Amino acid sequence: RINGKRLWDALMELAQIGATEKGGVKRLALTDLDRQGRDLVVGWGKAAGMSITIDRIGNVFMRREGTNHALPPVMTGSHIDTQPTGGKFDGNYGVLAGLEVVRTLNDHGIRTEAPIEVAFWTNEEGSRFVPVMMGSGVFCGAFTLEHAYAAKDTEGRTVGEELERIGYKGEQVPGDHPIGAYFETHIEQGPVLEDADKVIGVVPAVMGLSWYDCTVTGMEAHAGPTPMHLRRDAMQAAARIIPEVVAIANRYPPYGRGTVGMMQVFPNSRNVIPGQVKFSIDLRNVNEQLLNTMHEEIVAFVDRTAAETGLKIELERVSYYPPCPFHPDVVGAVRSATAKLGYPTMDVVSGAGHDAIYAARLAPSGMIFVPCKDGISHNEIEDAKPEHLEAGCNVLLHAMLECARV
Amino acid sequence: RINGKRLWDALMELAQIGATEKGGVKRLALTDLDRQGRDLVVGWGKAAGMSITIDRIGNVFMRREGTNHALPPVMTGSHIDTQPTGGKFDGNYGVLAGLEVVRTLNDHGIRTEAPIEVAFWTNEEGSRFVPVMMGSGVFCGAFTLEHAYAAKDTEGRTVGEELERIGYKGEQVPGDHPIGAYFETHIEQGPVLEDADKVIGVVPAVMGLSWYDCTVTGMEAHAGPTPMHLRRDAMQAAARIIPEVVAIANRYPPYGRGTVGMMQVFPNSRNVIPGQVKFSIDLRNVNEQLLNTMHEEIVAFVDRTAAETGLKIELERVSYYPPCPFHPDVVGAVRSATAKLGYPTMDVVSGAGHDAIYAARLAPSGMIFVPCKDGISHNEIEDAKPEHLEAGCNVLLHAMLECARV
Ligand SMILES: NC(=O)NCCC(=O)O
Ligand SMILES: NC(=O)NCCC(=O)O
Repeated sequence: RINGKRLWDALMELAQIGATEKGGVKRLALTDLDRQGRDLVVGWGKAAGMSITIDRIGNVFMRREGTNHALPPVMTGSHIDTQPTGGKFDGNYGVLAGLEVVRTLNDHGIRTEAPIEVAFWTNEEGSRFVPVMMGSGVFCGAFTLEHAYAAKDTEGRTVGEELERIGYKGEQVPGDHPIGAYFETHIEQGPVLEDADKVIGVVPAVMGLSWYDCTVTGMEAHAGPTPMHLRRDAMQAAARIIPEVVAIANRYPPYGRGTVGMMQVFPNSRNVIPGQVKFSIDLRNVNEQLLNTMHEEIVAFVDRTAAETGLKIELERVSYYPPCPFHPDVVGAVRSATAKLGYPTMDVVSGAGHDAIYAARLAPSGMIFVPCKDGISHNEIEDAKPEHLEAGCNVLLHAMLECARV
Repeated sequence: RINGKRLWDALMELAQIGATEKGGVKRLALTDLDRQGRDLVVGWGKAAGMSITIDRIGNVFMRREGTNHALPPVMTGSHIDTQPTGGKFDGNYGVLAGLEVVRTLNDHGIRTEAPIEVAFWTNEEGSRFVPVMMGSGVFCGAFTLEHAYAAKDTEGRTVGEELERIGYKGEQVPGDHPIGAYFETHIEQGPVLEDADKVIGVVPAVMGLSWYDCTVTGMEAHAGPTPMHLRRDAMQAAARIIPEVVAIANRYPPYGRGTVGMMQVFPNSRNVIPGQVKFSIDLRNVNEQLLNTMHEEIVAFVDRTAAETGLKIELERVSYYPPCPFHPDVVGAVRSATAKLGYPTMDVVSGAGHDAIYAARLAPSGMIFVPCKDGISHNEIEDAKPEHLEAGCNVLLHAMLECARV
């Protein structure tokens, strides 16, 4: 069994870096705060006897050797970057649960056949730079290193420059790193486990995701003298599309999701009719065919709105990954560890994307969910119970041991 | 007849001060550039033989004496401050048309019974400091001098300090300055005259205006794992209200106006359901009763949306002035001058607020509109034809002479 208090203390210490007034964390990818967080975790890894490898996209692998050097590592991990108004657990829990597994093995002097690795992947959140899940995406070849390096934040700084600046542009070629199996523990980031009063979510699959930037171009003009029928009001066209995003999601239950989370208005002055409005669209489903249908419906609706309003409306798909079913062996290992430990459990489809979906392209992968308070995540008030975090980490320990063999 | 070339040259010379790359002007109220603009115009006024009075809010009155010292002046004017991305004509035309009238009277040695005054009012645009139309508002008692002095820009500098700094805090008590009649020439800032192929707009009235800040508070949560029916999505509630702003305007034609020009989303991340959305609402009408009805309808709709969505929605009124019908004598003088000069004309209700609405609280007032290209204003590409500006100035000359008597 792992040490729940030590796990909790590590979480709280890491959460100091970028701590916000409301009790959350703001530690955006590749900022100085991200560097501080990385340095802290790497320091802990070294103190636990692990060797460190960093690849060219800044993914960090901390390795505890096994007895059989021919075996690829059994890996666990997640990310330590956060949302702008993020919490203490999203991502961080998965990394520090891995560290706690290693510390526990050290405490008991347990040697595994396969090496154990704890990874943290660069820029999982995608808040500062798209694509989201950048580090694991480059690692598995979902997109190129050059594409990732060129990504810019709103102030024009690139991933390549920022990696260099914070000292985490490593040597290893991304993906040039065998993996035997990959586990990721994570808070659920939704309300399902809490609602059902379960402690462990076994994750059979992750929903696919389709992200868009929608840009409506009208004509800015003075809000007073311009008659209603002569306007080319970009805000009004955007306001037609926004409810349709939800309507599309509602047509494909129970796993349809639709969100408009981001908007920019130009020139954003109260007495000027907006000349341009840009907003994001996020569509998800666990069924690939339904996700494709949702895609076709938003494309058609945007085209229809452009035709009806006479405005130019561009819809650019900026991210896509298909639904990801996890590997039966890894899901099975999680299921049997949970049963052995006797935790109340259920299956939970992940609505959030995780680095595990990219790891799953290279190795058998699976995830372990624990409840979070009120299902809230990507929020400074994100919270989780120490005993749930401990339970998830115990499941991780036993599932990894099953794969890595003692 | 006035000298159209001289008027145009003055406009182009003043537009050099704060000229932008895209051919517009950025000369915000009470900046160094505003001082330079003021100095240039005051110099021109003195050269034309006028005496200068400055009041405590920085309004400048340039006076050409009449033959009858008992008569109050016939005044014309506007403003020389601009929007951050403003044009060469908005405001500046009204001031320089007044100067051109005086220069023309000088050329012909014409003496009027009543004095002629050319005014420019401080901070009409309201871009740097609110309230908008500040100088004329203080002048007519719409709000106090102290209130205006205390207004701060985004960097915390006050109107009082900045007036002092640029040397335009005068001695005269605002409003302690009789006016016989007030005329204001202005570009239309809308497309009506151009559409109808007319040269002169006679302005019977200015629409009243009601400005609001609307704040929708939901609960931010992750866009993936949060099922649709458990969301408290502030963006979706905002998207219900935005089209209603236009629907309300369309229910009260032809002068109903409704605009959502400004929006801020929190936390503004593409995979976070927005926890808060703030946006502006601008409602206008020329009929006070209809404007009140529009106000009641937006209040009721917002309340209904709050009840239906279960979200907290606050609607705060941040500005209001009622519609302003102009004085029949002044409107009549404009109409007859236009007829005498034979310009194609129509009545145009002003959708934009102007200093004339505050002048109208103290003296018979009216306005003369000329077309602007594509109806575009508050934009660096704002443009107007020399022959239209000349025509408006000729109408101003003749209408003022009718009031001031030769
Ligand atoms: N876990 C997580 O928040 N991933 C970011 C990508 C997503 O929005 O699902
Ligand atoms: N003329 C002008 O743009 N005034 C500013 C106030 C308004 O929005 O009407």
